[in-house]
Amino acid sequence: MIQGDRHALARLFTLLERDSRSLSSIMRAVHSQGTAAYRIGVTGSPGAGKSTLIDELIHLIRAEGSTVGVLAIDPTSPFGGGAVLGDRIRMQRHHNDSGVFIRSLATRGAHGGLSRAVGASAKILDAAGKDYIVIETVGVGQTELDIMGLADTVVVTLVPESGDSVQAMKAGLTEIADIFVVNKSDRPGADRLVAAIEAAVSLDGGDQQWDRPVLSAQAHRRVGSQALHETIARHRAAMRATSVREQRRREHDREEFISALRSAVESGLSDLLSSDPAVQGVASRVESGEIDPYSAADEVLGAGSLFPLLAEILETDRRRRS
Amino acid sequence: MIQGDRHALARLFTLLERDSRSLSSIMRAVHSQGTAAYRIGVTGSPGAGKSTLIDELIHLIRAEGSTVGVLAIDPTSPFGGGAVLGDRIRMQRHHNDSGVFIRSLATRGAHGGLSRAVGASAKILDAAGKDYIVIETVGVGQTELDIMGLADTVVVTLVPESGDSVQAMKAGLTEIADIFVVNKSDRPGADRLVAAIEAAVSLDGGDQQWDRPVLSAQAHRRVGSQALHETIARHRAAMRATSVREQRRREHDREEFISALRSAVESGLSDLLSSDPAVQGVASRVESGEIDPYSAADEVLGAGSLFPLLAEILETDRRRRS
Repeated sequence: MIQGDRHALARLFTLLERDSRSLSSIMRAVHSQGTAAYRIGVTGSPGAGKSTLIDELIHLIRAEGSTVGVLAIDPTSPFGGGAVLGDRIRMQRHHNDSGVFIRSLATRGAHGGLSRAVGASAKILDAAGKDYIVIETVGVGQTELDIMGLADTVVVTLVPESGDSVQAMKAGLTEIADIFVVNKSDRPGADRLVAAIEAAVSLDGGDQQWDRPVLSAQAHRRVGSQALHETIARHRAAMRATSVREQRRREHDREEFISALRSAVESGLSDLLSSDPAVQGVASRVESGEIDPYSAADEVLGAGSLFPLLAEILETDRRRRS
Repeated sequence: MIQGDRHALARLFTLLERDSRSLSSIMRAVHSQGTAAYRIGVTGSPGAGKSTLIDELIHLIRAEGSTVGVLAIDPTSPFGGGAVLGDRIRMQRHHNDSGVFIRSLATRGAHGGLSRAVGASAKILDAAGKDYIVIETVGVGQTELDIMGLADTVVVTLVPESGDSVQAMKAGLTEIADIFVVNKSDRPGADRLVAAIEAAVSLDGGDQQWDRPVLSAQAHRRVGSQALHETIARHRAAMRATSVREQRRREHDREEFISALRSAVESGLSDLLSSDPAVQGVASRVESGEIDPYSAADEVLGAGSLFPLLAEILETDRRRRS
């Protein structure tokens, strides 16, 4: 995989999806490879043309001879999911290009562990030697904000007419965006949207090193993607002068450590709760209405046997892995 | 609150949002009040007219002299959130009616605990003496499916033209729906959508007691809401003959117990990870790059002091509450 074999890479991702417990040992190996890839995050509302924009970016990155991995985060809801499928198919024009690796990560059932999964996937693509990693999310819920926190440059895509501008400002998008793109800029209201974002950005203050630009684009006509590519390079250069990127990576490693701990405990707890006879006995009393769910939880916690059992499960698991 | 004081009810909800730890003691008190309210779940895509339909239902429920509580689950993403705000305002025509209580629950930062929060809120409204509880969600991600599992009757709202029908079928919506409503039925494609749903339902088999009907409505013109109200009553009567509802409630209580246990452990773990000097020491080594996040997590787990400390934190917390 580290030698750049894309089939090995695909198999590794599939393995991870099937057996999340193998994550820990894989990540230990991957971590030693260091982090060289530049990470571009792209977010925005459904229909904002993110995939077309990313498709253009891939094209430009490949034209300069660099390789790229794309992590597309599928939204949880199947409503309106049709576009996502179409987008994936569209990006498949790079399917036969060995310098491009595209992977969709589904949010379904991810239980808040999604940003961890994305972080791990980015590190794997990094270890596989990709020069750029593009991470695409839809919307800006807390999970999406966490995921965008993994990127070195965050591109927020908006379109006129959607009434998104006010919402976006409220959502604190100005805080995470490094570059704004007003896509479908031939539509009415584009100028007003650009002006609104610029006003919000200037109110927001921002930092000394980087004035967040607001670009216009018509990605489906290949207008504006070159400018976006250059602006990303400018942001990269500006950030290189500071320690921001290095600092972010350190924070991510710290969060990954806490998150790995939390995940191990939660996974052990799930095993315990579904198998421990004492817990099952109390659960039956809850079902029969003999005791309410909250008093029952207190009873189990008060009995004091939960944590020694939990420690035992995790120790067994740890020994098995090492 | 139990005497029906809506200001006390509002204060209780606010208290819960600020201090989730008080949930356990409140729920113990609420649980003893039993469950009498009938729960109606309404889900569908954004723009399907759910709130208008619910507004009409509230009107009909009030006309028969019953009281109602509404739990509106706001979607995580602020994109396209404008409609939700408008909907809330629309439902405010019941604002001065003491027989109606409307509460929005935000999904932001809910970490998968949302269906627990909705379940607890429904029980509180129940204890407050509401005859009906309407639970509204947008979309059908895993969280929304879990939430709809709390309802006695699930109404799925679709509109023509949105291309949702195929998506909805894929998402296994036919499995959770008790009643389908094709809203905005004056639009082109409505008949085709009704036929497509009926075909999917008949393929699906379904159960002996209830043939899931597909209703047509134009909620904004008050067409079809009376039929929906009556169909809900029919479903309620049909289910009364079976033990389905009783069985669902028991399962919910069991899940609530497991969920309360899990939540207590996770909350204690969060406290521990952010305060324990040993964990913080390892975190610093991760930040400096001395050790990778996953080996670090294994080191902490292997040291064996985590679980006794966790047990201690939870025991202190338990004593404080009792």
